[in-house]
Amino acid sequence: MRLRHKPWAKEYMEAQEHVFITHPETLKGNWKSEFKNDNPLFIEVGSGKGQFILGMAQQFPDVNFIAIELFESVAVSIVQKLVETPMPNVRVLTVDAKQLVDYFEAGEVDRVYLNFSDPWPKTRHAKRRLTYKTFLATYEAVLPRGGEIHFKTDNRGLFEYSLESMSQYGMYFTDISLDLHANEPADNVRTEYEERFSAMGQPIYRMEAAFRPKI
Amino acid sequence: MRLRHKPWAKEYMEAQEHVFITHPETLKGNWKSEFKNDNPLFIEVGSGKGQFILGMAQQFPDVNFIAIELFESVAVSIVQKLVETPMPNVRVLTVDAKQLVDYFEAGEVDRVYLNFSDPWPKTRHAKRRLTYKTFLATYEAVLPRGGEIHFKTDNRGLFEYSLESMSQYGMYFTDISLDLHANEPADNVRTEYEERFSAMGQPIYRMEAAFRPKI
Ligand SMILES: C[S@@+](CC[C@H](N)C(=O)[O-])C[C@H]1O[C@@H](n2cnc3c(N)ncnc32)[C@H](O)[C@@H]1O
Ligand SMILES: C[S@@+](CC[C@H](N)C(=O)[O-])C[C@H]1O[C@@H](n2cnc3c(N)ncnc32)[C@H](O)[C@@H]1O
Repeated sequence: MRLRHKPWAKEYMEAQEHVFITHPETLKGNWKSEFKNDNPLFIEVGSGKGQFILGMAQQFPDVNFIAIELFESVAVSIVQKLVETPMPNVRVLTVDAKQLVDYFEAGEVDRVYLNFSDPWPKTRHAKRRLTYKTFLATYEAVLPRGGEIHFKTDNRGLFEYSLESMSQYGMYFTDISLDLHANEPADNVRTEYEERFSAMGQPIYRMEAAFRPKI
Repeated sequence: MRLRHKPWAKEYMEAQEHVFITHPETLKGNWKSEFKNDNPLFIEVGSGKGQFILGMAQQFPDVNFIAIELFESVAVSIVQKLVETPMPNVRVLTVDAKQLVDYFEAGEVDRVYLNFSDPWPKTRHAKRRLTYKTFLATYEAVLPRGGEIHFKTDNRGLFEYSLESMSQYGMYFTDISLDLHANEPADNVRTEYEERFSAMGQPIYRMEAAFRPKI
């Protein structure tokens, strides 16, 4: 994600209070009240400019979606799109994935999406990968028993690592594709990175992984 | 594997009693006496014409290897090569992988190799895939606690299926490559199928998977 400094981003987003959540810790355990319904809640970690989550929110109006994007200068693109085309089932947070337990109660998140997460190819940076065991523990803490992570990437090394890391954590896989676009599902929503890397002829990898219920 | 009828294969192999084991059930629990040493025992299921297992046996003289190949007309090629170039650490069996527990005691096999197993792409044939859960249970029964399966294939569907099947069985992955030849390890021994499919430009998939010790 190319970062441009956007000094106006924070102020702009804070003005969109039906879309951008400035104090998500106050909603911990109360997201249903924010959305004013009982629908399931899916979050995406590292949403970038939001093409995926907005496409999903349109395809599934009966699901609530939260985009989690660390950088204000990036997340502001999602907010801008929502100002242009309002969608009642989407909110945006600019927080760090490693703090998810500060914002969500155990079992409050029904599914976690990870798309084209930063690969951090150097072994000494493995802890920063969003599928490192400490991140998996964080997702597990906010999901229900047997909760799922859906993950797409073009990065072979990150995908190989994630299969190892998740299986070693005790997760199992229910759906794996090692070339998603060879047979693209009709309902696949492409991310920005997915369009770009697919155009370059690289295979897109995808998995659905579930936590094993602890007995 | 193209099958040619070779009516002479059985008689030819039976004459090579230091290589071909006609009654493996009599050696159950006693393979160390057959090899006359205490070395670890690695088996390959579906060895084809044996290029892999013979290459491995040469690279690891202190490991005992057993090639398991269902068809006599195929296994005979391994026996012929061993007659030409004798190797004390290799034996050949023409038995069905699903009967492994008739030939090996629990924990008697130290590692299982699967290479380019028949893909059986139709869902109704899933039970025939050598990574279907009943086969996994058979491998687990002859391996020690935490035993490993090493698996290579060019077949995307079979590899995807195997990651799902093994993780659902409770196994985890310690080493996965989704393009083995992009960065081929110096000690990789290619199989016949591996040479063929790699020459066609297809990626070769490889994994090392371990059984989770039951508590
Ligand atoms: C490579 S981009 C992919 C963007 C988008 N998902 C796509 O597929 O087009 C990864 C995004 O994850 C965000 N990110 C990285 N680490 C994060 C973290 N710990 N918490 C939240 N977002 C993070 C980055 O800021 C970046 O925008
Ligand atoms: C596609 S070939 C691959 C041969 C070799 N491993 C290679 O990579 O070149 C698969 C082999 O597995 C053997 N096979 C299939 N099912 C088997 C079973 N249940 N037990 C033993 N061998 C089997 C077949 O006869 C065939 O020779």
